[in-house]
Amino acid sequence: VTSREDAAALDAADPLAPLRARFELDEGDRIYVDGNSLGRLPLTARERIAQLVDDWAERLVTAWPDWIEAPSRVGDLLAGACLGAPPGTVLVADSTTVNLYKLAAAALAARPARRVLVTDAGEFPTDRYVLQGLGEVRLLESDPVHGPDATDVVAACAPGDVALVCLSLVSYRSGALADAHAITRAAQDGGAFMLWDLSHAAGAVEVELEAVGAELAVGCTYKYLNGGPGAPAFLYVRRDLQDELRSPIQGWFGQRDQFAMGAGYEPEDGIARFGAGTPPMLGLAAVEAAVELVGEAGIARIRAKAAALTDLAVALGDERLAPLGFELGSPRKAVLRGAHVSFRHRDAWRICQALIARANVVPDFRGPDSIRFGLPPLYTRFVDVWDAVDRTATLVAAGEHHDFPAELARVT
Amino acid sequence: VTSREDAAALDAADPLAPLRARFELDEGDRIYVDGNSLGRLPLTARERIAQLVDDWAERLVTAWPDWIEAPSRVGDLLAGACLGAPPGTVLVADSTTVNLYKLAAAALAARPARRVLVTDAGEFPTDRYVLQGLGEVRLLESDPVHGPDATDVVAACAPGDVALVCLSLVSYRSGALADAHAITRAAQDGGAFMLWDLSHAAGAVEVELEAVGAELAVGCTYKYLNGGPGAPAFLYVRRDLQDELRSPIQGWFGQRDQFAMGAGYEPEDGIARFGAGTPPMLGLAAVEAAVELVGEAGIARIRAKAAALTDLAVALGDERLAPLGFELGSPRKAVLRGAHVSFRHRDAWRICQALIARANVVPDFRGPDSIRFGLPPLYTRFVDVWDAVDRTATLVAAGEHHDFPAELARVT
Repeated sequence: VTSREDAAALDAADPLAPLRARFELDEGDRIYVDGNSLGRLPLTARERIAQLVDDWAERLVTAWPDWIEAPSRVGDLLAGACLGAPPGTVLVADSTTVNLYKLAAAALAARPARRVLVTDAGEFPTDRYVLQGLGEVRLLESDPVHGPDATDVVAACAPGDVALVCLSLVSYRSGALADAHAITRAAQDGGAFMLWDLSHAAGAVEVELEAVGAELAVGCTYKYLNGGPGAPAFLYVRRDLQDELRSPIQGWFGQRDQFAMGAGYEPEDGIARFGAGTPPMLGLAAVEAAVELVGEAGIARIRAKAAALTDLAVALGDERLAPLGFELGSPRKAVLRGAHVSFRHRDAWRICQALIARANVVPDFRGPDSIRFGLPPLYTRFVDVWDAVDRTATLVAAGEHHDFPAELARVT
Repeated sequence: VTSREDAAALDAADPLAPLRARFELDEGDRIYVDGNSLGRLPLTARERIAQLVDDWAERLVTAWPDWIEAPSRVGDLLAGACLGAPPGTVLVADSTTVNLYKLAAAALAARPARRVLVTDAGEFPTDRYVLQGLGEVRLLESDPVHGPDATDVVAACAPGDVALVCLSLVSYRSGALADAHAITRAAQDGGAFMLWDLSHAAGAVEVELEAVGAELAVGCTYKYLNGGPGAPAFLYVRRDLQDELRSPIQGWFGQRDQFAMGAGYEPEDGIARFGAGTPPMLGLAAVEAAVELVGEAGIARIRAKAAALTDLAVALGDERLAPLGFELGSPRKAVLRGAHVSFRHRDAWRICQALIARANVVPDFRGPDSIRFGLPPLYTRFVDVWDAVDRTATLVAAGEHHDFPAELARVT
């Protein structure tokens, strides 16, 4: 049996442990295991937001020559810190949804003879919805725990009509980590572009966009990157394709020689052409500080700790939760996981509500029956994992979750 | 001749004068007349941003049930404060560019037999570029000072192939205020949707969307609304059309019963369906505070003061600038103007640089030859107008602008 002392020993040996103090933490005994949904506030993000507000007040419009570089400057930072991408390939702008729309539409336009978009039936909803709005979608029906693999993609591309394969590198539900190399190769062999949604991967695992060779990627900055609620998202376009692909949203922030305000739209060279409107500076300021922290920690150390944290969660789940009717909803092998673990239980929604209301544990629920424990390595301690599982087991053993409604509230 | 004392007397009688203290102001003697590009920081916006950061730190993901309503809550606030629109018709989301794309694409899809989009040759660049990306654009060649009128629109729609007319209510260059009623009627009589870009109108003049009857509108919140650099923009869809039109960007924030995460995209009822990705909460917090201030001032008083401020600028321009080679680039009648005035001069770019560097006046330049004096009524004093013109006249009379390069820098 794994004791809390065992967990404390892992914390004592953790090289990332000092980074926890760089975040604003709870004063009470709350166990926050939902950083996969919204990451904690880095102290430097608060400072940088305040600085941006000062700049707005004092420098006003004269600050724009500095501000205007932020989408590509923060993009380069992110590319180097955790995406394995070279400078000039990542832009921080808009939301993940809008970026996915831009890149998927660009891919479709570049493959006019192909009209099919492939994704997984279990893919994150906004990805499925965006693709449905662009063309005919072919859904993979992959294993709900392990997610899609290369053979699924080979089969889906076999008819020769696929323009784009869009999949999450880390599944939002199960935390499964896809085989980026094999799947990208399968899509490309099938004549399709590969677009990775890195929302649950960026800042959690080592992403190697350049080595993988994928054409396109998008992702979120408010989960493992800790950029703040609704922070601007990012997009990646492989350098050799940047001058071939065009954003469907022809905005002035993607225009060559923008302030000449010429008559016709002529896309800027490079990644800048995938910009649209004026960059959201408050959000960018926070993202920049947050990504610097990821760079300081080092993504290899983050990834190693994610494996150890989720290993502990899986082991404790076997010991304490399985006897109470929980089933592991994530891969058992650490190399096949991101930084969160799902447990399935038929009362998952009730348990989730009870944990927040009675046990001061904040996980999250994903229908129909999953509780996710997100374990962002920068600030999650091994004892947090132990406490989260311990409180869950205690609460469910006592039947406390039966005091909560079984029916889903609208906002979960 | 108008004296500085005359201007001071106008300030003494100004009912909005106390509101100036609600903004962070310059400590030195800088005259900021570029609020048409980036409005000043309201004190309450700084507070609200700090509060949002606290909420992020302390409430983390449990704050989302409150946050999630912000796009429509701030939209309703904006609708009532200065757009003349009923609740449930305005959403604060994304950038002006992305919103324009969403609504123009929706209009085109709703008029499948019509492929032409009409705008003005002098329309703001991002609007022209976005429309060019969506279909065939027919450009009005309107008067550069007074902008397009209804007869221009009637003629452009005569072939019967126009799906959408998109124009700015207040011209970004000349400040001309279009005849919203007559132009909207002309577009509708021609079988087209009318989309107003309110970027330079919202918070500057009384916009009466419901009375005008236009189908669609978009606009910016960081100019006269003082929402901050790159703050989220807004969109308006007339209520009776909301369930007919669809956003081309089918994001999860426009999905009915969003957190059920259903298989197929089914747009939410009402204005919410025009959302896409996760709302940018830092930006929304600032916009909410800023719009409250506009509501407190009252748009009728704002509009009256805009007329008086620009009247003063025009009069002083005649007295002091015309003899130095300046020409008025804005309409002479206040009822035909928004809240900024343009002066044209062949050395406009040099003069603009010299004003910033030598005279501590911050106007802005729009190529090829315009200097804009933006006079946001909430914090601009009549003496600021007098000082701006006085310093400009003094500097140009002394030929100081000849010390500055005639060639345009990339970022102006």
